[in-house]
Formats: sequence, structure tokens, C-alpha cells
Amino acid sequence: MDLVEQLNHIFYPRTIAVVGVSSDPKKIGAMCLRSLLDGGFKGKIYGVNPNLTELWGLKLYPSVSSIPDDVDLAIVVIPAEQTVPVVEECASKGVKGTIMLSSGFKELGSKAGLNLEDKIRDIANRAGMKIVGPNCLGIVNPKANLNATFLTELGLNKPGSVALITQSGAMSLHITNALTTENVGISKLVSVGNRANLHFDEVVEYLAQDKETKVIALYIEGIERARQLMQVARRVVKKKPIIAYKCGRSQELDKASLSHTGALVGNYELYRAAFTQAGIIGVNDLTELVDVAKALAFQPPAFGNRVAVMSSGAGPGMVISDRCHRLGLRLAEFSAATYRSLRKLVPPLNPVDNPVDVAIAARYYDISMEMLKLVMEDEGVDMVDGATVVPTNQAKFLEALVSTSKCYKKPIVACLVYPLSEQDEKLLKMVDEGRVPVYPFPDRAVTGLWALWEYGKILKNTA
Amino acid sequence: MDLVEQLNHIFYPRTIAVVGVSSDPKKIGAMCLRSLLDGGFKGKIYGVNPNLTELWGLKLYPSVSSIPDDVDLAIVVIPAEQTVPVVEECASKGVKGTIMLSSGFKELGSKAGLNLEDKIRDIANRAGMKIVGPNCLGIVNPKANLNATFLTELGLNKPGSVALITQSGAMSLHITNALTTENVGISKLVSVGNRANLHFDEVVEYLAQDKETKVIALYIEGIERARQLMQVARRVVKKKPIIAYKCGRSQELDKASLSHTGALVGNYELYRAAFTQAGIIGVNDLTELVDVAKALAFQPPAFGNRVAVMSSGAGPGMVISDRCHRLGLRLAEFSAATYRSLRKLVPPLNPVDNPVDVAIAARYYDISMEMLKLVMEDEGVDMVDGATVVPTNQAKFLEALVSTSKCYKKPIVACLVYPLSEQDEKLLKMVDEGRVPVYPFPDRAVTGLWALWEYGKILKNTA
Repeated sequence: MDLVEQLNHIFYPRTIAVVGVSSDPKKIGAMCLRSLLDGGFKGKIYGVNPNLTELWGLKLYPSVSSIPDDVDLAIVVIPAEQTVPVVEECASKGVKGTIMLSSGFKELGSKAGLNLEDKIRDIANRAGMKIVGPNCLGIVNPKANLNATFLTELGLNKPGSVALITQSGAMSLHITNALTTENVGISKLVSVGNRANLHFDEVVEYLAQDKETKVIALYIEGIERARQLMQVARRVVKKKPIIAYKCGRSQELDKASLSHTGALVGNYELYRAAFTQAGIIGVNDLTELVDVAKALAFQPPAFGNRVAVMSSGAGPGMVISDRCHRLGLRLAEFSAATYRSLRKLVPPLNPVDNPVDVAIAARYYDISMEMLKLVMEDEGVDMVDGATVVPTNQAKFLEALVSTSKCYKKPIVACLVYPLSEQDEKLLKMVDEGRVPVYPFPDRAVTGLWALWEYGKILKNTA
Repeated sequence: MDLVEQLNHIFYPRTIAVVGVSSDPKKIGAMCLRSLLDGGFKGKIYGVNPNLTELWGLKLYPSVSSIPDDVDLAIVVIPAEQTVPVVEECASKGVKGTIMLSSGFKELGSKAGLNLEDKIRDIANRAGMKIVGPNCLGIVNPKANLNATFLTELGLNKPGSVALITQSGAMSLHITNALTTENVGISKLVSVGNRANLHFDEVVEYLAQDKETKVIALYIEGIERARQLMQVARRVVKKKPIIAYKCGRSQELDKASLSHTGALVGNYELYRAAFTQAGIIGVNDLTELVDVAKALAFQPPAFGNRVAVMSSGAGPGMVISDRCHRLGLRLAEFSAATYRSLRKLVPPLNPVDNPVDVAIAARYYDISMEMLKLVMEDEGVDMVDGATVVPTNQAKFLEALVSTSKCYKKPIVACLVYPLSEQDEKLLKMVDEGRVPVYPFPDRAVTGLWALWEYGKILKNTA
């Protein structure tokens, strides 16, 4: 069984065994079963607990081996000390993959914890079975209605095209909830925990061929197989962008990181340099992570740094120009022909020499389309930033942005104020759903453009 | 009439004249009247238009002087060329203040525009009347149900304690909508435009004594009276914090800025140095502006940089620690007594040596209160960051955060995931309404703490 097959069984299981279900709703064994049920998983679920025969109408089994069916995925939620015989049982039953939510392994920093992890890894390796974790939150695959974590809340995430691989279960909620709030959604969530025999690089390898995934985002604290990750990344980024947030600017965090998922944070600068080398887009904070993911999920890469700004307000145009300057982008210079044609469409008092003042023209769909066509077809333009201040006044322009975006390979992003009315909320959603990424501030929209240009450069460099 | 009196007439008028109302709903004269009506202004509104006798059931007057009542505030929305006689009329009628939405003055860069602005300024100065603008969006004062702008959308902002003075009308929507979305709201919005005879420093002076305003936020492109602003600020920051976002890192923006509101962007570094000197908290981007304003609006300053982190997840604790390190904050070291007492409250596997792992303990209100009391009363702690991953599981901890915040002078901020459920949304609101500022990412929560510490230092330095 190759890696893809191994992980397909975990992400698209037909049958799941939950080993260690509990009737106490506060226990992880109960929460995990609740997540599967609330998430609407369509396959078969078998609960395992030697002391119970039934839970929430579900017949339970005393052991994995007593389940009268093939099991694709076993989710293990029992105390660490009891995991070895269970993993052995899974191996001999031919279970295809395991998610081990239990903690009490390498992260303890004790010899016993380390030994236990070695043992389960060896058994799994011999059986050709991957273990997600141990000491992890699990995985989510919205397309398969699969919330294989102990947090039902994660089941509320919308399907999308960004996959997140994370070393922190808690941070996965922060990031996926943001992606769903931003109308991006997720394709997969993988909380890798201690990485017994499933590493960042392997999940990246898997996601490279996953059709649901367009963008791979990494939350990294510290890893041992950095070289492998960079090697895989260098290959994968030719097909899909990879973004990484690396926690741990200070090695003071080594202790915290070790006790979290058993890894040193290492040298931040080395990581960042390695990201650049490998074609991974490194981000500085979590807002950036989400903004970059949104742009890359919705829009094609930019093959130059020249931005056309079409703004209904002068201030946002200035903030955009300012931020472009800071991130190494620059304002496009339109050709004389573009300038002349724009001049005819835009009232005389509104400047068109980039930023283009679209305050009046943006009220009309046809004029908006014409303006956008001119700008998109100008050879001096690599990408467009459309900024509207009162979305309802510029609804036609927003529609035109979405239509135009479908016809050209140059990327477009949009900047709209935080909606306070239902009408504005709807417009914002329309633009996002048209896959023109919306940002609430002009400077954040430029972060999106920057990412598209970064990815364009990566594609050129790795070609 | 001193400045406060002058501006009180503008922010709390009893009677308003709108000079240049229009029956065409797309014209600014109509939009402006619509804003006043939709905003629910309780005082009297007189519309002025020599060619109409009635609009939307409102009797109109041919001129300002024909209004049979004293007029506190005249909002002028007629073409620039016609403004001189109107300002003269306002002056002789004893109108107390003017908002001039019309453009076509100094920002044109022409001698005619400059002359026109000089003229209206001189008339107003002689009459002791302040002009907001010209070439501005107007003002908003939610407490007075006053939306004196041509954007009805601005009337949707909630009352709060942050005042915004802005050189860009469009950016005011971006910023105030964000403040309202973040449950902060606004006390006043002032779009200063060309600043004919009302300058940043004067509005700051006014807001210093405004009871509704706790925090003053500035969006600056470029100003002439920088020295006056810094002088006033140095005095005002002893009472209220001032935050500034300065647009224009590059002097390439001078041209755009000149044609926007008639000012050079100037040297960014000089501005930033002047901010520091004056005790103004400079921010790098708009997200920071809002995050900093939220912290300062809700919480007291911190008089040290030692942070206690109480997190229900290890990952958020790491991101917080990381960001603290980057911003010059540090993790507090608890006293031996605090440590021992916390140890008794928190299950053995959960670390308490900062970050404190509150995953289990946070389920109980009493334990949460005890933990928070210990931490707040530890002399080695200057402020607290409470981070919960699944708000519904840690609802009791969040309640305790709010209660604790009311009993101590050390600041508290909170970090909660973006809510995907109504339940989580409610909890988030409860915390914000309890004036513990909520941030969606751990790193943004630290920005809030950083601002509270910055302000603590400013208070010390200016004492």
C-alpha cells in the first residue's frame, strides 16, 4: 500500500472504529463519537468499549477484533498505557489507518513515554499502517462529512480548497474558523501531534495529489524532518502553493514546544531561509496566513509586480499604494491608449492615472466592465486591486469584478468595508463566492496580491 | 466662544440647516438629508434650496437667512463657487458652525481653489465659526443620533468610546465599521478634509474634554500643523491615549495626497519619531489600529511588561509567548506561593508555570476565579492574556475573566476563535460587553497588551 492509499483510508474511510467510547459526555471518547455523528459521517461507525454494550442507540463491541466488519480507520482514545495491545489488534485485524488522540507519549519527555511511542510506531510500520498523532486533535474532511476529532465545533467548517496541517490542535480551530468566516473553507485539516510515523512532508505529499486541495497551509512549531519537508515542498509547489507559519522566534520556547508535541522550535531564521529555498511562502502572523491562503485559494498567480488600483475612494487608494511600496509591489503605468480610453469613461474630476478613481463610473455595470477590460488587457498591468467604500453604491462594479475575473488569467482582489448591513453582507459574499477574495482593509488586500506575486515567482524559479 | 463651545455646537446641534438639499437621491444634497433622517436626529432640520419648497414632507427655505430659527450647524453641499455668499450668510445669521462637504478648493492645486478656501476661512474666522472641511465627509456622533455625512451607512455605527479623526472619508468607513464589528463602537467621527480652519490638533483638544471619548485615533496622510498636534498630544495623552496611523511611507505619494486633501505626506520616519516624542502610539497597519484602540477603550494601562498567559491550549500559549517576545513583553514569573496555589487548582498534567494550562480548570467558575485572583495578585504579573479554544467549554472561565477584570487595575485581554455558532457568538459578545477585549488570534491579543503597556509607559514618562 503506498502513502496515498494509506491516507485515503484515513481521509475517506468507509468504516470507523472508535476505541474507547465513553458515556460521560465530558470524556474525549464521547466527544469524539459525538463529532462523527454531528458531522454527518455517512459510513459505518463501530464503538469499542469492553464495559458497555450500547451508547446513544449504537451497539458497542468489546474489542476491535470483535467488530464483524472490515475497519478502515480506528480512532483511539484510551489511556496511553493501554494503546500497545490495541494497535497490535488493529494491525492483525488489518485496520488501514489509525488516529491516536491519546496523549502520554514522547511529549512527556520521559523514557516511558518515548518507549511507548516507539512501540506503537514499530507495530504500525510493520503493518503498513499510518498513525495520525499520537497526542493530536485528529483530522477533518468536510467533503466526506468526516470530523474525526474530539471537537464537534470543527464540524461547522465549510468545505473549501485550503488544507491545514498543524502541530497544534488548538491553533487548528483558530485557523480553520477564520478560513470559514472568510468564506474560504477547508479541504482537509490534519493535526499531526507527535508525528509517530506520519510527518509533515508525508501529509504534504498526500495533499499534493488531493483534488480538493488547492493550497496547503502549515502551522509549524518545530520538526525533525525539516530536510524532507523542504525536498517534498520544492516539488509540490510546482503544482500547489504552500504557506507556512512558523511559531517560535525565540528558542526560549523550546521547553514549551517539547512538552507540546515533542519537538524543538529550532532556529527561526534557518526555517525562514529554508522556506524561501523550498518555495514555501512564509508568513509573519496568523492574519497574514489567512489573507495569503484566501488569495491563493481564489486567484491565479501574478507574473509581475505591477498593480492597477481601481478605488472608489482616494484614501484606500493611498493605503494600497503605500502598502504596495512596502511589500515590493508597484503601481502599474498604463499605456497611453489605456489612459485615453479610461479618460473617456471616467468623469473629468476623477483621476485615472492609477489609482483609477471609480467612484462614479463604478455605478454602472457596462462602464465597469469596459474599465476592467482596458486595465486587464494593458501589458503594463499584472494584477488588479478593486476597492469600494460603499458596497451597495458600487454593486455593479463588484459584479463586474467577478465577471472579469473569470475571463482573464491576471489576478484580482477586492477590498470592502466590514459589512454592517445585510445588503453589504450579501454583496461581500457574492464577491467571495465569485472567487475574488474580499479583504476588510486596503492593506490586507495588498497582502493577498503580494502572495500571488510571490507564488508567480516561485513557479518561475522552479520551472 | 472658545473652541469647546464652538465644536459643541457642531457635535451637539439643536438645529441643522442643510444648504443644497436635492430631490435627486443620487446627489450628495439628498444623501446628506437622508443620513440625518435615517440617523434619527432629534433636533430640528431645515433644508435650503431656492428652487424647491418641499422635500420628503420637509418644508424648504430659499436661503439660510430665511430660516425662522437660530441655526447651530449648517451643512453645506453646494458647488464650491457658490460657497462664499453662503458662508457670509451663515456668519451674519450667527450660525455657530459649518460642515462643508463641497470639494473644489485647495485640493485642486489651482490658485482659484486656494483663493476660495482662503476666502471662506477668513469669513468664518471673523465670525468665530469653525468649518469642518471643506472637501470632507462630515462628522458622526452616535450619542446625538447625528450622522452629518452623505453616507447613511455611517449611521449604522454603534456608540462607543473611540473617536476617529481622519483625513480620508473613505478610510473612516473602513475604520469605524471595523470598530463597530469589534463591539467597540465610536464616540465621534470627524473627517477633517482640507482643514480650512479646523485642524487635527484642535479636534484632539476638543476630544480631550469630551466625556464620551476615551481613546483618540488618527488617520493621517499629511498635515501642516504637525508641531501643534504634537504639543497638544503631549498634554492630552496624560488623560487619554492617542493612536495614529500615518499613511505615506514613500514620498511618491505626495502627489496623491496633495490632490486628496491638499497636504504633503512628508517624511514617514520623522512623523513616527514625533509620535513617540509626543506620546502618541504609532501603528503599522489598520488591523493594529483597531486592535490597539479596542484594548485601550476597554482596559486600563499596564505598568510593566510581564504577562500571565492562561490558555486552554498549548499552541495559542506558544503563539502568545512568541509574539510577546517580538513586541518586548515577557512571560511573568510567578512567586513560589502563586505557583503552589495554582498547582493545587490545576490537574497535575497541566503546566502552571506560565502559560497556565486552564483546559480543565476553566470549566468551573469558582476555580477560574481563584486562579485569576492568584495571578492578578502576584506582584510579578502586570497583565493577563486569557485564551480559550472552545468558548462553550470554557464559558465559566470567560465569565470569571469579566468578573475579575472589574476588580483589579491590571489589564486583561482575551483570545477566542472566530465564532461559527450562535452560542460562541453570544459568548464573545458577553466578554466584549464586559469590556475584556476579545481577539480572534493569539498574536492580535498580544498587540492589545502591547498597547496597554505602551500607554502605561507614556503615562509614566509624561507624569
